[in-house]
Amino acid sequence: MHFHFPQKVLFKHCDPAGIVFYPRFFEMINDAVEAMFSDALRWPFEEIHPDQGVPTASISVQFKAPCRHGDQLVLAVEIKAIGTSSLTLRTRATAQDQLRFEADHTLVCVGADGRPTAWPDDMRHKITGLMEGRT
Amino acid sequence: MHFHFPQKVLFKHCDPAGIVFYPRFFEMINDAVEAMFSDALRWPFEEIHPDQGVPTASISVQFKAPCRHGDQLVLAVEIKAIGTSSLTLRTRATAQDQLRFEADHTLVCVGADGRPTAWPDDMRHKITGLMEGRT
Amino acid sequence: MHFHFPQKVLFKHCDPAGIVFYPRFFEMINDAVEAMFSDALRWPFEEIHPDQGVPTASISVQFKAPCRHGDQLVLAVEIKAIGTSSLTLRTRATAQDQLRFEADHTLVCVGADGRPTAWPDDMRHKITGLMEGRT
Amino acid sequence: MHFHFPQKVLFKHCDPAGIVFYPRFFEMINDAVEAMFSDALRWPFEEIHPDQGVPTASISVQFKAPCRHGDQLVLAVEIKAIGTSSLTLRTRATAQDQLRFEADHTLVCVGADGRPTAWPDDMRHKITGLMEGRT
Repeated sequence: MHFHFPQKVLFKHCDPAGIVFYPRFFEMINDAVEAMFSDALRWPFEEIHPDQGVPTASISVQFKAPCRHGDQLVLAVEIKAIGTSSLTLRTRATAQDQLRFEADHTLVCVGADGRPTAWPDDMRHKITGLMEGRT
Repeated sequence: MHFHFPQKVLFKHCDPAGIVFYPRFFEMINDAVEAMFSDALRWPFEEIHPDQGVPTASISVQFKAPCRHGDQLVLAVEIKAIGTSSLTLRTRATAQDQLRFEADHTLVCVGADGRPTAWPDDMRHKITGLMEGRT
Repeated sequence: MHFHFPQKVLFKHCDPAGIVFYPRFFEMINDAVEAMFSDALRWPFEEIHPDQGVPTASISVQFKAPCRHGDQLVLAVEIKAIGTSSLTLRTRATAQDQLRFEADHTLVCVGADGRPTAWPDDMRHKITGLMEGRT
Repeated sequence: MHFHFPQKVLFKHCDPAGIVFYPRFFEMINDAVEAMFSDALRWPFEEIHPDQGVPTASISVQFKAPCRHGDQLVLAVEIKAIGTSSLTLRTRATAQDQLRFEADHTLVCVGADGRPTAWPDDMRHKITGLMEGRT
């Protein structure tokens, strides 16, 4: 099951070469994950904080083709695995049926002290449901 | 040989959890690479463009420890390998003698059409010199 | 007539004080103007460039109340006046029926050389129509 | 007395038109103010927060000439006035002896609750000293 997040490439995203300045892709990925937590898991970031957090522990991105101003990107976020306190995601962004970038990233559920903490039971249930396409 | 780029963690970098919003690390990495091209290779980005470019083809980052407002980060960029048109880098950021993140990234030299092109001879010479600690 | 642009306050917008880092408001304002040109005027920025551009010549913003993560902002862009090559806008952002900020800003239509140029006739017609509520 | 903050125009600042994307100027202004508090007033933002803060209440900017990648900007921050809890600044940015933008901005000292609070006595003393060129 994938969570789809549309993101038109805007003026602010682009660099003097006319393509997306790559750090902006990480903002897009963060926005897509934030939207998934808010819209699909009903656990919006603004409610997670400040008692908990879901920082990114690692991310690996392959840029396959440049993105230009006006491109209608869609980021498809797939939950690959859930651990005690981790979440492994793969996000693939396409435009015009072409893969533009692919990201493998891992989030960690942390407490107010920044240390890893187990996913709350209800969240684990929801995330598992989303993985299995039940939600 | 490493190119060192100091970067204090500023207010703009930090999120509501009081730590660096991770897409900001990619701006720092980009700034460090831009400074290396400008200061160590004497081939500043503003001269590379628009006839050529050095976009990032892939990047993989492990976040080892959070960075907080006021931390005095130093990014050490190491050139690991040079290919016909690629450049493989490893950037390690430390503060207070602690590794905060480590990035493996690959740049590609492209022409005005965005396609990979061989590094100009003088640049290849300079990059090799920097790798070998001759500059 | 106002062009309305909804913008939820996201994690990326917020600073360690838990409120929007104010330079992010200017990205929101830019996004709102870009959306107005694209959706209301049918002259998207990606078509305006590179032959023309609509840079901001001046902007004055009063921040009336802080915006927090999760706030459902709506930016209402009003066209106040059109000159030969200028466009005077007022953007008011509200959330929960409360004014959060108010911006007075002026854009200028420029040519590829960056110099002011008269609005194309069809654009002037559309802009005037939008001002008068005909579109 | 002016606090000078050098800022080379970097790749990340620039848009597809090859000039600085204007919201980036507000990050520069914020960085300049943060540096003035840290370096000239010895009251770094990371120590001000979270018990206090100095948010921007209003800002008005005139963009006089475009800034391009590689330009060596210098932002000169001048303290124009200090009130009970406010600080009125003017920041003028020049490159190659040409004024590029001029900002009039007002900060407010706030407490942890976000409400205006009087400047601490020692800070008022330092700020007044900086205004009068004693520091």
